[in-house]
Parts: sequence; C-alpha cells; structure tokens
Amino acid sequence: MGRPVTLFTGQWADLPLSELVKKVKAWGFDGLELACWGDHFEVDKALESDKYVRNKRDLLEQHGLNCWAISNHLVGQCVCDPIDSRHKSILSPEIWGDGDPEGVRQRAAQAIKNTAAAAKLFGVNVVNGFTGSSVWHKLYFFPPTSQDDIDAGYKDFAARWTPILDEFQKLGVRFALEVHPTEIAYDVITFGRALAAVNNHPAFGINFDPSHLIHQFVDPTVLIDTFPDRIFHAHIKDSRINLTGRNSILSSHLSFGDPNRGWDFVSPGHGDVKWDPIIRALNRVNYGGPLSIQWEDSGMDREFGAQESLALVRKIDFAPSNVIFDAAFEKK
Amino acid sequence: MGRPVTLFTGQWADLPLSELVKKVKAWGFDGLELACWGDHFEVDKALESDKYVRNKRDLLEQHGLNCWAISNHLVGQCVCDPIDSRHKSILSPEIWGDGDPEGVRQRAAQAIKNTAAAAKLFGVNVVNGFTGSSVWHKLYFFPPTSQDDIDAGYKDFAARWTPILDEFQKLGVRFALEVHPTEIAYDVITFGRALAAVNNHPAFGINFDPSHLIHQFVDPTVLIDTFPDRIFHAHIKDSRINLTGRNSILSSHLSFGDPNRGWDFVSPGHGDVKWDPIIRALNRVNYGGPLSIQWEDSGMDREFGAQESLALVRKIDFAPSNVIFDAAFEKK
Amino acid sequence: MGRPVTLFTGQWADLPLSELVKKVKAWGFDGLELACWGDHFEVDKALESDKYVRNKRDLLEQHGLNCWAISNHLVGQCVCDPIDSRHKSILSPEIWGDGDPEGVRQRAAQAIKNTAAAAKLFGVNVVNGFTGSSVWHKLYFFPPTSQDDIDAGYKDFAARWTPILDEFQKLGVRFALEVHPTEIAYDVITFGRALAAVNNHPAFGINFDPSHLIHQFVDPTVLIDTFPDRIFHAHIKDSRINLTGRNSILSSHLSFGDPNRGWDFVSPGHGDVKWDPIIRALNRVNYGGPLSIQWEDSGMDREFGAQESLALVRKIDFAPSNVIFDAAFEKK
Amino acid sequence: MGRPVTLFTGQWADLPLSELVKKVKAWGFDGLELACWGDHFEVDKALESDKYVRNKRDLLEQHGLNCWAISNHLVGQCVCDPIDSRHKSILSPEIWGDGDPEGVRQRAAQAIKNTAAAAKLFGVNVVNGFTGSSVWHKLYFFPPTSQDDIDAGYKDFAARWTPILDEFQKLGVRFALEVHPTEIAYDVITFGRALAAVNNHPAFGINFDPSHLIHQFVDPTVLIDTFPDRIFHAHIKDSRINLTGRNSILSSHLSFGDPNRGWDFVSPGHGDVKWDPIIRALNRVNYGGPLSIQWEDSGMDREFGAQESLALVRKIDFAPSNVIFDAAFEKK
Amino acid sequence: MGRPVTLFTGQWADLPLSELVKKVKAWGFDGLELACWGDHFEVDKALESDKYVRNKRDLLEQHGLNCWAISNHLVGQCVCDPIDSRHKSILSPEIWGDGDPEGVRQRAAQAIKNTAAAAKLFGVNVVNGFTGSSVWHKLYFFPPTSQDDIDAGYKDFAARWTPILDEFQKLGVRFALEVHPTEIAYDVITFGRALAAVNNHPAFGINFDPSHLIHQFVDPTVLIDTFPDRIFHAHIKDSRINLTGRNSILSSHLSFGDPNRGWDFVSPGHGDVKWDPIIRALNRVNYGGPLSIQWEDSGMDREFGAQESLALVRKIDFAPSNVIFDAAFEKK
Amino acid sequence: MGRPVTLFTGQWADLPLSELVKKVKAWGFDGLELACWGDHFEVDKALESDKYVRNKRDLLEQHGLNCWAISNHLVGQCVCDPIDSRHKSILSPEIWGDGDPEGVRQRAAQAIKNTAAAAKLFGVNVVNGFTGSSVWHKLYFFPPTSQDDIDAGYKDFAARWTPILDEFQKLGVRFALEVHPTEIAYDVITFGRALAAVNNHPAFGINFDPSHLIHQFVDPTVLIDTFPDRIFHAHIKDSRINLTGRNSILSSHLSFGDPNRGWDFVSPGHGDVKWDPIIRALNRVNYGGPLSIQWEDSGMDREFGAQESLALVRKIDFAPSNVIFDAAFEKK
Repeated sequence: MGRPVTLFTGQWADLPLSELVKKVKAWGFDGLELACWGDHFEVDKALESDKYVRNKRDLLEQHGLNCWAISNHLVGQCVCDPIDSRHKSILSPEIWGDGDPEGVRQRAAQAIKNTAAAAKLFGVNVVNGFTGSSVWHKLYFFPPTSQDDIDAGYKDFAARWTPILDEFQKLGVRFALEVHPTEIAYDVITFGRALAAVNNHPAFGINFDPSHLIHQFVDPTVLIDTFPDRIFHAHIKDSRINLTGRNSILSSHLSFGDPNRGWDFVSPGHGDVKWDPIIRALNRVNYGGPLSIQWEDSGMDREFGAQESLALVRKIDFAPSNVIFDAAFEKK
Repeated sequence: MGRPVTLFTGQWADLPLSELVKKVKAWGFDGLELACWGDHFEVDKALESDKYVRNKRDLLEQHGLNCWAISNHLVGQCVCDPIDSRHKSILSPEIWGDGDPEGVRQRAAQAIKNTAAAAKLFGVNVVNGFTGSSVWHKLYFFPPTSQDDIDAGYKDFAARWTPILDEFQKLGVRFALEVHPTEIAYDVITFGRALAAVNNHPAFGINFDPSHLIHQFVDPTVLIDTFPDRIFHAHIKDSRINLTGRNSILSSHLSFGDPNRGWDFVSPGHGDVKWDPIIRALNRVNYGGPLSIQWEDSGMDREFGAQESLALVRKIDFAPSNVIFDAAFEKK
Repeated sequence: MGRPVTLFTGQWADLPLSELVKKVKAWGFDGLELACWGDHFEVDKALESDKYVRNKRDLLEQHGLNCWAISNHLVGQCVCDPIDSRHKSILSPEIWGDGDPEGVRQRAAQAIKNTAAAAKLFGVNVVNGFTGSSVWHKLYFFPPTSQDDIDAGYKDFAARWTPILDEFQKLGVRFALEVHPTEIAYDVITFGRALAAVNNHPAFGINFDPSHLIHQFVDPTVLIDTFPDRIFHAHIKDSRINLTGRNSILSSHLSFGDPNRGWDFVSPGHGDVKWDPIIRALNRVNYGGPLSIQWEDSGMDREFGAQESLALVRKIDFAPSNVIFDAAFEKK
Repeated sequence: MGRPVTLFTGQWADLPLSELVKKVKAWGFDGLELACWGDHFEVDKALESDKYVRNKRDLLEQHGLNCWAISNHLVGQCVCDPIDSRHKSILSPEIWGDGDPEGVRQRAAQAIKNTAAAAKLFGVNVVNGFTGSSVWHKLYFFPPTSQDDIDAGYKDFAARWTPILDEFQKLGVRFALEVHPTEIAYDVITFGRALAAVNNHPAFGINFDPSHLIHQFVDPTVLIDTFPDRIFHAHIKDSRINLTGRNSILSSHLSFGDPNRGWDFVSPGHGDVKWDPIIRALNRVNYGGPLSIQWEDSGMDREFGAQESLALVRKIDFAPSNVIFDAAFEKK
Repeated sequence: MGRPVTLFTGQWADLPLSELVKKVKAWGFDGLELACWGDHFEVDKALESDKYVRNKRDLLEQHGLNCWAISNHLVGQCVCDPIDSRHKSILSPEIWGDGDPEGVRQRAAQAIKNTAAAAKLFGVNVVNGFTGSSVWHKLYFFPPTSQDDIDAGYKDFAARWTPILDEFQKLGVRFALEVHPTEIAYDVITFGRALAAVNNHPAFGINFDPSHLIHQFVDPTVLIDTFPDRIFHAHIKDSRINLTGRNSILSSHLSFGDPNRGWDFVSPGHGDVKWDPIIRALNRVNYGGPLSIQWEDSGMDREFGAQESLALVRKIDFAPSNVIFDAAFEKK
Repeated sequence: MGRPVTLFTGQWADLPLSELVKKVKAWGFDGLELACWGDHFEVDKALESDKYVRNKRDLLEQHGLNCWAISNHLVGQCVCDPIDSRHKSILSPEIWGDGDPEGVRQRAAQAIKNTAAAAKLFGVNVVNGFTGSSVWHKLYFFPPTSQDDIDAGYKDFAARWTPILDEFQKLGVRFALEVHPTEIAYDVITFGRALAAVNNHPAFGINFDPSHLIHQFVDPTVLIDTFPDRIFHAHIKDSRINLTGRNSILSSHLSFGDPNRGWDFVSPGHGDVKWDPIIRALNRVNYGGPLSIQWEDSGMDREFGAQESLALVRKIDFAPSNVIFDAAFEKK
C-alpha cells in the first residue's frame, strides 16, 4: 500500500489538464498536485464560479485521480521579493499591473490569500508555495551585512505573511513553504528563524523537498526531525552535485541543464538524495500525506522520467514496523 | 630566498599605520599591501600632495618594509552593484553623496580611476579590488533567469569597467580583481566570461585568493593554470568547510565567526586550502609578486595569527626545479 | 536456479508456525530456518516423540517448504556467559532452574547437545547458534586486562564446548556459530582464536552473517576467505551505520530502533552490506547451503520487508563462471 | 524505447553462431556485434563468397537480430605491436606466417583493410578493434624514456594506420579504436595524441568502453565530451577496483579472475562504472548507435550475466529531454 | 601566552616524583597533573600529615612547576563496577580488603571522598577520574537488555555518586569524569544521561579527552559545545583508527600496542584527532584550565614523545579573536 | 638520536662528489648513499686500485660523513630486461658493447657481481639496485598472457640472479632490490613471487621505497610487515597522485614533471606517503640502517628540497617504546 503518489503539474503546464490526466492515469499515479498556472488550477476562476471547481474535480474523478494539495509558488515568490523584470514573466498581467514593486507585493499577498479560499472551495487544505525574501540576495555578507540587516528581512517576512497565515488559519488551510534557496528559509537554521519570526504560526509549515537541500549539503532528514509537526506536504525530487574544480557550487551563472553547472536537478534515483532515510524520517513523524513527484531533469525525456519515478516511489515507500524484535527472543 | 611576504592591512584599519608598521616589522614581514581605507593609504590625499605620498614611503622604508600593491575593494564594489544601505557604510561621504544608486556608481568609477593615479604616484603598478556585479544576486535561477539576463550583467560590467581599465593601462597600472562571490567573477567559468566581456583587456587580471574558492569547491590551481598570464597578485588566506547537516554551504544568513556557519575564514594552515599545489601552480606561471597574507579568523587572536601565518608562508614557498632528473641517470 | 532462500523464524516467534508457513509459502520462499523457540521447533518435544518431528516435517512439506538448519541461539548463549537476570528471560524455566550461574551453564550445555540430537531426528545437519563468552565484557582493556585473562576465557570456551562438539560430530551434525559481538568470536581474529582453542574441531564452524560485522568495520568477505571450509550456513541480514558525531559506534546504550543509535539493523539492501562481493566469496568457497533471511528492521513493516528481501536475494545470487575468457580470444 | 542493445560475440566464440543466435534471441537482444574469430564472421570467407555474407545475414534475420558493427581486435593488435609468442595464439596461421615481426605486422595491416571490405559487403559501416602500439610497454619511464622515444611510437602508429584509414574512408567504413591499455590510446590524453598523429583522420574514432577507463581512474564521460564526434560505437562493460594494500593497481601479474588482483572485469552493474552520467554524455553527443554488451566476468555464470546485463541496459538507457523547465514556470 | 601545559603523571608512575620533576622541568612544562598512585600523590599520607602536602608543593615549586588538578582514576573505577580479579591489581590492599564486591565499592567510594579532601589540602579544586559503571558491559543489547535494565545502572550511579559529589561540593572541589568506554558516560548521549541522573549536580563535570572519542566516531567538539559549563579539565591525548577488514573496532581482544588492533593510542599529532577545532571549541566555552598531556603510545619512546607533544601543544593553542572583521571594512 | 640520515647521490650525479660533500655536510646529513655513476663511486676504479677506495673514504671522513650502502640501479636493470635503445644511455660503453641483448645482459650480470666486490673493499655490505624483468612489459594481459608466460619470467630472473646472489653471499654483501614498477617485483605479491623464485636466497632483500608503492595503491607498511627480515635498506621518497578524470594512473605517456601526469614524485612531506605508520613498521622489524633521502621533485628547487627533507626526517623518526603502559596503572 504505502502513501498515495501524485504528480506535481507545474512542469507540465504546457499541456492542458484534460490531456495530462489521461497520461497520468495510464502511468498509474494516484493523483495530482495541481499548479496554479497554465489551465491546471486558476484561482480567479475558482473564486468566480462553483462550476469551475466542480468541473476540475469531475475531471480528476473520471480518471480515478485525487488531489491533496494545490501549489502557487509563483505568486508567493512575489510577496517579499525585491521585484525586478524577471517577476513579470511569472505573474499574470493583473498582479503585475504597473510593476511598481510595492504594489506588486501587495497584490501578490492578496492573490495568495485568494489561493487559500480557492483551495477550500476545491476541498484541499494544503497550499504549497514560496514566500520570497527581501534578504535572500544578501546571502554573502559583503558589503558587510549586519544581523540587524538580516533581522529586518525576517521582520518584513513576518509583517507580510502573518496576515496571510491568519487568513489561511481562518479557512482551515495551511501554507507549506518549499524550503529552497531564494526563499525566506532554505535550510534548517533559516526555517527555524522564519518560524520564530511568525511566532510558530500554526498555519506555517514545510513542503519538504530534498532536491533543494542536497546541493547545500543539508541533511534532509534533519529538517524533518527538527520540525516533526511542520511537514505539511512532501515532494520527491532529486538533484546531483557535479563539481569539476572549474565550476562553483553556486552554479557559475549557468542555466539548468548546462553540463558545466556545479549541480542540477535529476530524475529521482539519479541524484545524491538518499531515499531510505527520508522514508524512515517521514514515518517517524507520521507524515501521512502524498509523496508528490516534482519531476525536473533537463537531460531526460519527461514521460520516461515520470514513469521511472513512480516505479521508484512505489518501491521505496514502506510502512513502519509494529514489532519489537527483542521481545520475540524472549521465551513465552 | 622565496617570494616577499606582505601583510594586507585591510583587517588592521583600526590601527594607525605608524603603529602597524612597527608590529609588522618586528614579526619579520617584507612589506605591506596597503588598504585604501583607515589612514593606511588615502587616495584623495595622495593626489593632492606629493608630500603625503613621500611620507608614506618614508614610513615604510624606515621600517625596512616594501609595498608592491595597494587595494581598494570597497570603492570597486560600488561600480557595478545595485546600491543599498550597506554600501553607505563602506564609502566615504563624498562618494556616497545623496545615495542615488547611479550617482554612487559613477562616483565610485571615478574613485577607482583615481586609485590608479595614486598608485602610480606611489610607485606601485597593481591595484587589487572588487568590481561589484549587477547580476551576482541572481545566482540562483528563480524567478527564471535567462542567459539574456546574465549577459546583460556582463555587458554592464564591460561598459562600466572598460573605460576604467583603459585609464589603468594608460598609467601603466593593472587592476587585479579578487575573484570572489558578490563580484562579476567568482570561479573559473565566470572569470573567463568577464575577461571575454572586456575583450581580454591587458589591464584586467586576478588577485588570486584561494579562500574564496574552497567553499565553492573550486580548485584554486585550475584558476591559475587556466589564466596563467592574469595572476597579477596573490593572497594567502584560508577557509574551512563546516557542514553539519543542519546548516547550508550558503551560510544560513549567519555572521562570520558564528560556529554554526557552513564555512568560515580561518588562519592559513587551519582550513581546507592545500598550499603545496598552489605554490607549484604559481611557479609554473612564473608568478613573481608577493604572497600577501590577508589575515581573517574570527576565532583566533589576530597577532598570534599574523605571526603563525608568516611562519607558514616562509615554510611553504619554494622555488621551481632547474634540474631534469632523468638526465642524471644517464651515463656521462 | 541459485541457492535456496529460507526465512529464519526467530523474529516471527509470536506467530504459530502453522500460520507462518502460509505466509512464507505465498511470498515464494523455498524453506525455513526454524528457531528453537516459540512453537517453531521444540527440542524437548522432538526428543520425546517421533510424531512431533513427523508433524513438523509434514507441515513444511504440505506447503512445499524445506528446512536445512535449525537454530538455538538462546540456549547456546548461556553455555559460557556470566549469567545475570537478562538470561532468565531467554531460557525455559527448566534450564534456568534456581538461576545459580554454574548450574544454568551446565544445563544449557546439555540442552545444546539435545538440540543436535533433535536436529538429527528432524533430518537436519546444521545447528546455528551462539556460544556465549566469559570474556566478551572485557573487550575494553580497563581495568588492565592481560592476555592471560583473555586466554582463560578461550580455555573456558574450549572446556565447555569441546564435549558438546564431540557429541555433534558423533551425531553427524555441525555447530555454526553466528560470529557476533557478545560471543567468543566476533571478527576474523577472534574466530581464528576460538577455532584454535578447540583444535580445529571439525564440528565447529560459522553461521555467516554480515550484519554483525559491518558496524565493527570488518570486511565480511575476509571472514569467508580466511575460513573457506568453515562456512556452514549463511544469513542475509543488513545493518547501517548512522554516526552523527554525538553518538558512539558502541550504541550509546540506546535500544535497537532508536534513530539516535550509531548503527542498527535494516532490511537487506538498505544498509551498508555490499552483497556482490559476498556472493562471489560464497561461490569461491563453494558454499551450497541456503541463503537464510534473518529479517530485522525496527523501522519497516515486517511483511513488506520479508518480501522485499526475498526479491533482493533472488536477484543478487548468481553462479560462478565456467568459462575462461582469455581462451575465447584464442584462434581455433 | 532507447537505443538497440547488442551482444558482442567475442566472449562466446566457443559456440557456433547458429547456436548463439538462438540464445540471444530468446533473451531479447536486438542484435549482435560479430567478432571476426570463431565462426562468427570470417573475413576471408566473406571476401571469397557472396553466399557466405548472405547466409550470415539470413541467419540473423531469421532470428530477428540486427548487426551494426563487426570487430577485429586480434588482427588490429598486431599492426603496431612488438610481436612475441603471445601474438601467435591470436592470429591465423596465414597471418602469423614465419612469425618474423615486421612480416606479421604487414600482413595484419592488410587483414584489417580486408575487414573493412568485408564489413562493407555485409552492410556494416563500423569496424571495432585494437591498433597495437610500439610504445605501450614504455609506459613507465625507466630506463629514462624521452618524449622523442614516445613521439617515435606515435609516428609509427601514424605511418602504419594512415593507409589503413584511407582505405576505410574510401569504402565508407570507420575504424573505432577501443581505448584500452596496450593500445596507442588508453585515456583522454593519449587518444588526443593519437588523433593528432593521424591529422584528425575522419575514419578514426572510438569504440567507447568504460571498463578500461575506470581502473585507470579516468572519467569515462570526459572521453565522450572531449571527442563528441568520434564516438563511433559503445560497449557496456564494467570493472571493479579491489585494492587491499597488498596488491597493485597494475594487477600484480595475476590472471583475470584471480581474487587478489587489484581490479577485474565484472558484469555490468556490479562494478565501479556509473551508468547514468554515461547515458547523459552519449545523449549530449547524439550517439545513436547500439549499446553493445561485452560480457566478461570471471566470477559469474555467463548466461545469467548476459540476461542480467540486458535488463540493466534496458533500464538505464533514457532519451534526452525536449522540454525547458524554466519556461513551464512562466505565465502563458 | 596560551594555556598552561601540564604532564599527567599516571604513565610515569614507575619513576619517583623527585626524578620526574627534573625531566619535566627540563622539557619546559608548566606543571603536572599528579596521579594518585606510585609516590606521586598519596591520598592517605596527605590526610595524615600536613608536611606531606607541604613537601609535595615545595618539590614542585623548586622546579617552577604548578599543579591544577590531581587524578584518581583507579579508585573511582571501583565505585560502580562489578568487581572482578582485575580490580585487585589497581587497588591498594586496604581498599581491596577481602575482595567482596560490595565492600570494595563502598571502600572505593570513601577513598574518592578522601581524594577531594586531600585535593583541598593541596590547594587544587579539580579531581579527575573514572566512575565505573554497573551497565557498561551491557553495551551490546544481547541478551535482550531493556531500557529498564539500563536505567537501573544510571540509578545505581546516582545513588553511589550523589553523596560523593555532595562532599566534593562542600569542599569546593569538582569531580571531572574522563568520558571513556567502561565508564557511566562515554559519549555525548551517555554523559547527558549521567548528568541528568545526578540532577545536574554542580560538582559533576568532564575531564575532556578526545582520544577516547575518536575511535567511537564521536566528534569531540560536540561534547564541548553540548556541555559548555562542564568542561572542568582537558587532556591532550590522541588515538588512531587502524581498520584492515580483519580486525574489529571493538579491538579483537588484542592488547594495546598490538599492531593488529583496530585502534590504539598514539602520541598527539600522530592520530586522528583534529586539534584546531578542539582549541576553537575550548575557546568558545572559555575553558581556562591547563592542557594536560596524557602521553601513551606503545610504539614510541616515552621521552621523545613527551617533548614532541609539548612542542605541539605550544603550537596549536591560540587565543580567541577580539576583533570583528566586518567592522574593519567600514569607513571611519 | 634516531637513525642516521643519508642523501642518495644519484640525483646529483651532475656534481662532482668533492663538491657535493661540502653541501651535504653543511646541511647536516650523516652520510651518503653513493651512486655508481657520475664520479661518485666507480666500480671499475675501485677494483683496480686500493687508493681509489681509500680516497673516497677519506673524502667522506674529512666531512664527517659516513656511508652504509652503494647503489647500482642502472647496471642491475640490464640483467633481465629486454634490451632496447634506452638502455644504451644508462650503460657504460664497455657494458653496452655491440648492444646485442644477450651480451649486454651477461656483461651487466658480471658488473653487478663486481659491484659487490667493490662494496666489500669499500667496507659496505649493502648494494641497492634494480633487477630488470623479462615480463614487466606484460603487465596487462593482452594479448592473452598465461601464468606459464609469467612463470617463465620469474624463472629467467632466478636463473640470472641466483649466481649473482651466491657471489654476494660469499662476499658477505646483500642485494637490496628497490621494489618498483619495471622490476621483477613491484608490490607485495610480486616480491613474494620473486623471493620464492630464488628459494628465499639470504642475500636477496628490499631497498624499501614507498614512493613507488603509493601510486600503485599498495600500503607500504604491508611490504615491511610481510617481509620483516628482508628490509635491507630504506629510502625516504614521496609521490603524489593527481588524477583529474582526463589522465591515467598509468601516466598517459607524459614525462615526470608534467603537471598533467596522474602521479609524480614530490619532495617528502608533499605527497601521499604517510610517514608515521612507516616509522612504526620499521621499528617493529628492528630496521637499524639509514633513512636515505632519494630526492626527486620536478617542481622544486633541489637544494631547498634536500634541506627541507632532512628536517622532516629528523622530526618523524622516533624510537619504539620500552614501557608497558598498563603496568604503570597497577599499584605497587
């Protein structure tokens, strides 16, 4: 049995959902983690019309697929970020508006609240996403960056996200930050700092994804064990380190897929993530949600990869023991 | 024998130069790499008055110290950077002015030209420093960053620095970029890209410093061997990786000296830099300049460290061979 | 083809054998290694009644299962050990008696002889088990422990086990010690010492089990190659090292299954045992007995694990070559 | 689907081809890489009679098998080698003749030209093989070996092989050297030197085989990426390093299959070759030919191994991506 | 400057103190850590006669040597241990008495209290030593050992040592347990458990000695950082891991000095201890006591080693920084 | 104290001995290992004239230098080798003669006997050198090389060297083969085979030199411990592995000193040799001869290196212990 396995649709946004569900069903997935871009899950339409939500759900059910979470990384990113031209490409014209940074951030904040409302209508209580960060780009402390500068970044995060998280909580929905470079939290230490900044807000947790930790040399199981009740959702995604002496772990300003990069995403099982300890850690904290494959590998055919990944997850996911072995040695 | 050993004064700017020279002399250094901050080497004063320059030189000579390079990292940093409040703390009020970013960048560009002029007056033909970068903070490609975005950053660098480098060349002075995160070049690949951007400008080279490469997992000798005629100056500085599974190689937004950081600077010999291959590589490219100790270790007494480092450098620096051993086996 | 694969029943003693055989058959095993506890194989009953033995054999045959060895670790442990309260829980009331250490040891010695007799009646010529040790607990040499102290332990072992082994030999049965911490032999060196102590007794050999060697950093193939004719039986069991800097390879007095332990048993394929070199070594010494899965993993569902392990063993077990490749290159 | 998978027949030359094809078909291979020894592909007969070639092709087609390359390592080896008694065993009596070294070399050169002609008749445009080398045995530079000595070896290679390669080119056939110790090229550096020696002859390329590189500590993907247009054919073969402190990576003059050797060939998946990076590299250079299993493992049953290997190759061979993931994040 | 360096006299107990002080002075040590065996520091005599204490102190002062701690490992060991014949050799006849275990333990408990009293008279406020343990020998959990069994061991420790520690506290002396296999605490986890068992008794701390941690794969700096206010004393001692595949990390019942052991003590600098991180950790917790060389290396001349070690300690011990480097970059 | 340290003069043959002794004395060496080439030690002259020998000895004594061994690698190499043009450059015209291989080999055999006679006259009882090998170049087994082929090589060695060794024994001189690629023995296994071939001839042993073992991944201490009574002489020489993925551990036919080689010789302390375990092993086998620095590093100034090496050897050479530490713990 094991946990349900879903496919995150963000990397398939070029396909209409009606086409994607057929493939996903045929490959044997249990469900989808719908991305709030492409036509996969459109927040505005969901809030406008009951029928939109009903039709999405019907489409999934007709293919025997379930949905436990939706994701809105792109809008979340813009809540705290210093906004530049790249953000325009990930936002709808409505949210981008005139592109004035503070206006963009405020509209993005409203949009992420709307996502929670739409999630509730759709019957899903987890929204995965990003938060952005006003201090991520100050990761190297030159020019000299004081802890005051950094604290200001965490306060900015708290000021912008606490109202959002309050709204989530009111709706009975939780926000799962994908701990990830470029976000307010990207390792165990910074997630702890972010969580403290929002006073352990009950609606704030983690979309666990080891592929963003491995190239930072963070042990993914430590993130799980340190925040056992904050693992709201889990991605299956892998990355691989590829250091040659010439290139930097900071990626040398090379694009994903460039074989000269110091690390890159690869299909699960091809990288440096060790899955067995992660399953054990998820078992220890009683994570019962889906294992959602976010498939991204610039060197492999996407459809081959999705199927290969599903087979891997079916194989690696095991239930915890309910036997104590020492006891079996004792005489009855 | 061996190369001269100097101390970079940037980490001692709290001491007046007149006091520092006494210590440095007593410890046995051959000279100083003067920082253009504190009272160590003031560019404006040097340009204003022949006497200022003469006095500096006298002070050094009285203590038997030489000088092969001056350094102006702080001003250089501001030529290409997106300017924020942190830059104010590293600039003089004159250059900061009203803090309008483009104005700051242009005044910094002028200041770095002035540094070349002052260097010439002082009889030194290398200026070490930083360049800043308009794209450093885009090192992780999310929001999606295209190679067009990155190319724009290298073009901005070329546009701002080519006139500076032309001025250097006219004066017979060379600019040595300390290849370093936060700069236009931080590994072998990015230095290659920066060099191409300025059309292999003869005045543009490297202030080699392995401490910035090690925590990126770049092999320092590859930088030397790839750009054999661009090693204009060399720092002796060390850093150490300290990954615990909790922290990130990206430093977790923790200050230097925090024992939880994923890496930190340490006194030479205490870190992960391997010195022997570096000496061989410097020998191979016939680097004949000083080995300049940039001493920075938040966990060690500074004066203990400077002396320990000098002893290390004296020990590790050897001349190349002038014998071919096979020949010795042959019968005469 | 390949070797037969059995399941060791010791970790399933909470299930009656009649129930276990059904599961084991359904999963596809070739047979069982019966534990002499629970109702799986009761030595006393076997010696009392031909029918008991006949019925056991019938039960197995009805399910198409075979048996090549029985195991009596618990009684064997008590032959040499300093007896304390923990031993009471692993012995029958008859053997424990009044708990006087020497009396317990002598009754255990008789019981292990009886096990050989019962094995013979059951048609099996290998008994796996433990020996105990009077010096195991002196593994760290403080208070100062002389080689005389240790020699005394090996002599005690020889004095107690030589009569047992003689009885085994008379019956045509062999005793296979599971080389294991807490026993007279736990690595290559100590097995050599134990074997010498009993003058290379022909009835004394090894129940090979790599899971007890890996966390000692012993190479399992060296044990096989050093004692090629003493590999009487083989377990498939895995263990994994999990050192964090806080915990000790000596296990920190933490129970099996505690995620803070420095090592623990895991399902085969999830640990640090490398199976390919072990199969090659078993092939080199012509080991033709079963590969018996002793399944123990405190973090995995037992039935998932048994099936996963069987699939693994079927895949890893290959026959040696009968071709010399150089010859194929030569012209006919 | 992936690339076709073939079996190289050189290690099966003891079986008549008519028997081998049945096995190979039953196991599920797509084709054969025929060895020019045994009765598998006899160059002389092919040149003598159209019917011979026709019959071979028919035999393959009847079993649904294809052929993309033939191999003639043995004859090729003798073109440049200092000839000794070992060469007699790998040559036909006609080519060996009186065994005078120079005569042998010239007859071998003719024979390899004939192989190209036979390949063309058979409809195959790649011949895999060896070149031999007059300087391989001078790999350790004692007695003192000058670069002049070595240059002479590469010139000898060029002198002997340029006419052969010209003949290949005329016939539209290419020669794929298996980069391998004992040959003119055995790593990235020496293949570069050999290629330069024949002035980048278009008919000269590589039969890529990682098993010969791993024990030299050469990264197989670097060979592919350095010579992207020279990968004419690819073997799937594995080797494993087995260093104990006693033995040498130079193999201690021990035969293949001796467990004391410092390295040995093993069935694919059992050794130190990492397949995923190799598939990515072959994808990057658009290698579209077969993946040909050259199966050799002195410790495993040959038929078990061939099937296991085929299953492995089917699993590891994936197509490259045709999606750019960043783009999927952008709003439509 | 740096911390004082002392020599622990336990390994020199064959020499009268009057002879040892001469050597130690000549070598340049700052003082001694006196062992309570041989004639170095005799607790009974110290309590009997003021003159004994006075004479000892005079002897040291005449040679310019100081003393910051005395050590009584042997007696401490017997407070909790199951007593066997080996303990007789480390105890005086008075404490051994009739050898009845409980009587020995009680007399040892009294003797360790006396040691505190003698230390006070001698003007020293740290006593280093061992505690023994009633559960150390149950380190491998077979026969099945419950946490109840282990808890009983820690309770026994608390019951026996709390009165001792109370007495220490009353006298203003502290007990520093050398965290070490065979003791109630041997890694970070077990020291935490022991400390909890005595309710964080203020008189209970650590004699830090990395040589006992390295072969357990415990990171010595974690012990320091986890118990920053419990580092009462520090040993400089090294050990080296020497695993060959044949031997066990559990030492194979081989004596110290046997080259086949899996680990052994070696002169500082020759083993696997990394000193720089230890000095930094001691600096972080403001440890201001001596660095005491406990010299033990069965393969090196003792006097060569003592001198070599002293030179090492002088070199590796550095003071922490009092400068913040970022500040030096800021413009004045 | 420690062992005497000598300098092997082979790498300084371009200097007349009269000049070399002055330098060597000034640097602080205890003696020389004289090479039998250049004017350092000329066998023919020594046999011709007592005065020659007397003068050599006087020259050394005038500078306070001793000599424990002479070396004649070049002539020894030619005893078993297949002779080619390279051998001409290492032989005197008399021994080379007409260059006919068998003649060369026989004259070389005579010359090595003469070396023993000259050594005796000079008062030295060890001659270091090479043996050559008729099978070294067959180290990779293609074309297929049978163990018969290899056995023939060892028989050839025995046939040629047994008479030489008999002569040595008669003279009371021993031959120390430098175990080294290109020789009959180059690792532990092959030295065992060579020793067996000459029936454990008492005059045949090892000139231990770890620099030839490291790049073969042989553990130098295993060679010492396996042949404890055959260590006749010892070299201090280091080598370093430098594998980049492009180059081969077989050296890619690149000259010593080329930075692209997979390994190269370096000044002691700069390479991969671990000296502490070697000193311990030499102590274990009671090696009492000199530690002779054979200095060769193509990237370092020769005179800097000789001095640096001497300082290293003085520091690393320690005597074994004569104390048993456990005993010191016991009560008197």
